[in-house]
Amino acid sequence: MKILVQKFGGTSLATYELRQRVIHHIRNGLNEGYQLVVVVSAMGRKGDPYATDTLLDLINQNGRSLQPRERDLLLSCGEIISATTLSSMLHREGIDNTVLTGGQAGIITNHQHNNAQIITINPSRIHQELKKGKVVIVAGFQGKTTDGEITTLGRGGSDTTATALGVALGAEMVDIFTDVDGIMTADPRIVEDAVPLETVTYTEMCNLAFQGAKVIHPRAVEIAMQTNVPIRVRSTMTDNPGTLVTSTSEVTRLAGEVQDRLITGITQVPNVTQIKVKAKEGQYDFQLKVFKAMAENGISVDFINVNPSGVAYTVFDELADRAEEILRSLGFEPELHRHCAKVSAVGAGIAGVPGAMAKMVEALTEEDIQILQSADSHTTLWVLVRGEDMVKAVRALHRKFELHNIHYQTAE
Amino acid sequence: MKILVQKFGGTSLATYELRQRVIHHIRNGLNEGYQLVVVVSAMGRKGDPYATDTLLDLINQNGRSLQPRERDLLLSCGEIISATTLSSMLHREGIDNTVLTGGQAGIITNHQHNNAQIITINPSRIHQELKKGKVVIVAGFQGKTTDGEITTLGRGGSDTTATALGVALGAEMVDIFTDVDGIMTADPRIVEDAVPLETVTYTEMCNLAFQGAKVIHPRAVEIAMQTNVPIRVRSTMTDNPGTLVTSTSEVTRLAGEVQDRLITGITQVPNVTQIKVKAKEGQYDFQLKVFKAMAENGISVDFINVNPSGVAYTVFDELADRAEEILRSLGFEPELHRHCAKVSAVGAGIAGVPGAMAKMVEALTEEDIQILQSADSHTTLWVLVRGEDMVKAVRALHRKFELHNIHYQTAE
Repeated sequence: MKILVQKFGGTSLATYELRQRVIHHIRNGLNEGYQLVVVVSAMGRKGDPYATDTLLDLINQNGRSLQPRERDLLLSCGEIISATTLSSMLHREGIDNTVLTGGQAGIITNHQHNNAQIITINPSRIHQELKKGKVVIVAGFQGKTTDGEITTLGRGGSDTTATALGVALGAEMVDIFTDVDGIMTADPRIVEDAVPLETVTYTEMCNLAFQGAKVIHPRAVEIAMQTNVPIRVRSTMTDNPGTLVTSTSEVTRLAGEVQDRLITGITQVPNVTQIKVKAKEGQYDFQLKVFKAMAENGISVDFINVNPSGVAYTVFDELADRAEEILRSLGFEPELHRHCAKVSAVGAGIAGVPGAMAKMVEALTEEDIQILQSADSHTTLWVLVRGEDMVKAVRALHRKFELHNIHYQTAE
Repeated sequence: MKILVQKFGGTSLATYELRQRVIHHIRNGLNEGYQLVVVVSAMGRKGDPYATDTLLDLINQNGRSLQPRERDLLLSCGEIISATTLSSMLHREGIDNTVLTGGQAGIITNHQHNNAQIITINPSRIHQELKKGKVVIVAGFQGKTTDGEITTLGRGGSDTTATALGVALGAEMVDIFTDVDGIMTADPRIVEDAVPLETVTYTEMCNLAFQGAKVIHPRAVEIAMQTNVPIRVRSTMTDNPGTLVTSTSEVTRLAGEVQDRLITGITQVPNVTQIKVKAKEGQYDFQLKVFKAMAENGISVDFINVNPSGVAYTVFDELADRAEEILRSLGFEPELHRHCAKVSAVGAGIAGVPGAMAKMVEALTEEDIQILQSADSHTTLWVLVRGEDMVKAVRALHRKFELHNIHYQTAE
């Protein structure tokens, strides 16, 4: 029998009405003849009593010094509470089900508390419950070490649980339910005529996610890509098919022709600071010094531009003061440009197309937007702009690449 | 090194101030040179977001049909949340500690979800952590089956966890912290001059608990009794020594003389209904029929009085209608006396003392209290009275047996 993994995020479980929609999707999955594995996150957003952030707030009122191992024990409860709540609702609806913790579901991780990596998955218990005809609800975001310690997954959380289970179970599909209609061509809060994409490749999805699209974590996509398990990113509130994330060949097959779209989507990362450091005379290792100092102080850098006379890179605004201090203590005189934004155009079609960056520059110039820095890879074009230009830049690029015209089919 | 088990109930963990008192007692235990195992219940009372009843309320809003296994998964979170909260506070105070779930603490139970029995305890992990110099915080009320299912203990909950660990670890003492000053000679809300008892025997304690004293669960006492681990029932709010619960010989040794107290305490169980069933002519097995019918319908009976012409027994008020219905369906014509109360006088000293019941009857008669039924064992005297007489009866017996004169030593 075919297996479908459905993942419902915290916002999909926040209210009674939303949970009714979750039941609707579960019923649909069963009606389509699937064996169902349902992965859930902790309920609701900050402020709800069982949300992850609220559990941490409780601790913050009581010492702010939870050890990593105990933090995992605490946080794992958030997902268990939402899983059992859903279980109770399904049971009342006559849908036979059982709840498994991450550990019980066979998710084995290393010992890196708060940021554990999945080492292996033993899906025998899940198969056993599926065979009994049960919907298996799995508490997301958590696993267990070989010696019984409870861990939480760092990057990707419950999305990673869902795709990793999809891979381990040989699932036909992993449905990621969320509060938007799929992967959008741009953030709909910025671009009014942004549309959901019908399909994107794993690579495009990873790039979109890395460049600011928050719908699904890139780590989860990378895992799905390992065995080509398709992901559908869908809305809890509608029956629309959402966006199918799959391999390049499958995207091509579905389109019935070789894809000729240049750009898939426009994304943005706000609140970054550009830092420029000039080389001092006679210092041949100044670049090494700069990046080593950042790394040793746990400051992530991005958008690195190295040349013989200096380096430029970005850090998040809140780390800018600390970065400046470190650089000055090393004798550098850094130049800081705060409150910038990184705007990206992502698309598998960029590779080898000479006109793409030109089109990007043209769009921005037409709007009098200054490009502070730029970069490109075979799948992504980046520009750094002033923060106040971000919205204008995203809209200009969405228009220039005609993303509102991307064809999309809705349900019914 | 000597091991001390401290158990803090939900009310002891309900507020920040109370949790500060908990830290105080933990510090005292360490200063006295103990290795410390701290067992905690879920925080607070109904209404607090992580209390057991609140977790169940969440479910009740979402279908009221949580399966037993999933109910245990959910409820186990209540204790984990309070354990990690305490852990964070201790860590900030510089007290090295770790949290273990019931399963991690080695508490192995049978598969009877919601009412699991401890089969065995493997304390090796606790010993290992104690050797590292850590305070070991154990989430109470829970265990694990041999195949990794999470269970909750039925009777006695976290008290049972504490005394069972005390036995398994060979602890010198188990401290049960609560919101009263120890085991009282009567409920202080009823009897103004009730005093805490300095010592009680395990047997007295079990009887007091079975007869309505709610401070500690009899199941927990029975476990401690198996290897004579002493229990201290103490107040979180004071440094008073509380009541020592131990073996008869130890109580005698501590008193320096053979104990001559007749009665230890007066307890009450309100809201019971007396049911009388008369034998019908020719029915020799009517008693069997009555009690079999009650058992088959899950109705607990108490205060059973059997004689050739009829039986009398009590059930809780809320089960009276159901019991009546069952009896009538069997052709009996039961006589019900609702809203009664069972008042008990408990004391190891009763055995073989002829005057005890006479004294009890005298005290009640002086107050014009009608005795509806009575019974006695070698440790307890019971009377059934009308509900409106309960308070008067408890006070009269407390006075008659001069329990306010029981000697008690407070700290400093």
